[in-house]
Amino acid sequence: MKDSAPIIGIVGLGSMGGGMARSLVRAGLVTHGFDVDESRVAALCAEGGHGGSFEEVGRSLDIAVIVVVNAAQTETVLFGDSGLARLLRKGAVVISCATVSPDFARQTEARCAELEILYLDAPISGGSVKAAQGTLSVMASGSVAAFDAAQPALDAMSETVFRLGDRAGAGSALKVINQMLAGVHIAAAAEAITFGISQGVDPSTTVEVISKCAGSSWMFENRGPHIANGDYTPHSAVDIFVKDLGIVSDVARAAKFPAPLAAAALQQFLAASASGHGREDDSAVAKIYARNAGIKLPNTED
Amino acid sequence: MKDSAPIIGIVGLGSMGGGMARSLVRAGLVTHGFDVDESRVAALCAEGGHGGSFEEVGRSLDIAVIVVVNAAQTETVLFGDSGLARLLRKGAVVISCATVSPDFARQTEARCAELEILYLDAPISGGSVKAAQGTLSVMASGSVAAFDAAQPALDAMSETVFRLGDRAGAGSALKVINQMLAGVHIAAAAEAITFGISQGVDPSTTVEVISKCAGSSWMFENRGPHIANGDYTPHSAVDIFVKDLGIVSDVARAAKFPAPLAAAALQQFLAASASGHGREDDSAVAKIYARNAGIKLPNTED
Repeated sequence: MKDSAPIIGIVGLGSMGGGMARSLVRAGLVTHGFDVDESRVAALCAEGGHGGSFEEVGRSLDIAVIVVVNAAQTETVLFGDSGLARLLRKGAVVISCATVSPDFARQTEARCAELEILYLDAPISGGSVKAAQGTLSVMASGSVAAFDAAQPALDAMSETVFRLGDRAGAGSALKVINQMLAGVHIAAAAEAITFGISQGVDPSTTVEVISKCAGSSWMFENRGPHIANGDYTPHSAVDIFVKDLGIVSDVARAAKFPAPLAAAALQQFLAASASGHGREDDSAVAKIYARNAGIKLPNTED
Repeated sequence: MKDSAPIIGIVGLGSMGGGMARSLVRAGLVTHGFDVDESRVAALCAEGGHGGSFEEVGRSLDIAVIVVVNAAQTETVLFGDSGLARLLRKGAVVISCATVSPDFARQTEARCAELEILYLDAPISGGSVKAAQGTLSVMASGSVAAFDAAQPALDAMSETVFRLGDRAGAGSALKVINQMLAGVHIAAAAEAITFGISQGVDPSTTVEVISKCAGSSWMFENRGPHIANGDYTPHSAVDIFVKDLGIVSDVARAAKFPAPLAAAALQQFLAASASGHGREDDSAVAKIYARNAGIKLPNTED
């Protein structure tokens, strides 16, 4: 390892990656942003970041943060025809943040090891606001060397780093567990609030009372007001949970693990996406409950 | 209404009612306890409470708190052959705490009104510890006169009283909504923690990490440690959720409200009860997940 300040590349400048890139810049780190949308790169450069292609700057990077949407994109970024992995110097570290299966994380760690690149299995939690603040939670596992190499970027991007083991897989497993619960809880919140309407209870009353009772969840308190207010501005979209509960379903099936609640929740998100709500806030799953029950939600046309 | 201190009767001295009775005694209120188990009445008397039959003391009561397990028992206590309702003076108030359907609450309010008795639809939340402390939450609806008459008992038993409307039904609706979420969240916690084991993640790690992430719920944080520790001492039993998710199912079906997550959770609690775990802690629903997946839980024989 070299002692000078690390040079960082971050791939994917969407709502999560964009905020994380700004947190890296704000921490004084030399940060190159990469995105298929050039305007996002330009915006980062205007705030002190840098651009360039993989070919141009890949060899100079010490840390490569990959914040794309899934395993397929992660694989393309690293090992595709113009992929980054073959360019990275020996001892550089990949911080892989997408929600992927534990098996994919283990396989990718092994492929990186063949190239003498370090790999940190590092899914993130906290949403776009915490990404921009540099206060994410990271569910991380990997070798001590990978953690050490990743440290400057982790410090800049996160408030909490869960160290979950010395090889890839555990980080992704915890993230998949979290998404299983998050998806079930969002659908449950939608089910309960809409059920309340069927019983003559105003959604704002349900949100207010249940938030103080044993039936509450982090997602209920966070998403419940979206439904009560009829505000489906996407903070996290329905299609994210179509994807993430799909990963849960894949991983569970591969392990021969029956997961009836996650399966039921996935069906509701699928119906929401198929009904044109895929890009709305994930709380728009409530629209499926309402439609199926012949109920009108607050401030909706349906 | 009379101005002197009210005389209170409390029917059902189990884990909830017993604690509530002691909170009433501790507040200095004259409190008669009733239970089919005479030893519970004797224990209350030893701590400053009073006994007696409905026939002996019913006419003297100002407030009758009914803390039985369901609608059928509530109806028997009030309107059975030796029921309490016909004995209560005009203007006395029934505080009905069992989890019942909103329709049952409305019907019972109307039957009490025929006898010129006040009725407070007042399901409780918080568990046996808060019952004993006098710090329950009460989801209450009823007439202003019913609230006024019930006030001394509510003050002694609860920390929070949600005033949810001026007639019976709303209180029970909120309780049913809460139990829907609570049941789904317990099953989801069991599903997620057991799924974690299938991915090589220790239950205590899942509990620790998820409790700080967006996948958490009140129930996950409360029941998760039971599963991680393999301690199924019943704080609230599997059979309570067989009953309460059964009420959810009945109420939802009557309203033609499809509730797929609550339905899936009920199936898991039914399987737990049918497998001999009905009187264990409700977190023992995890044993069904484990058995179905061929997984061993911590500190269990199975």
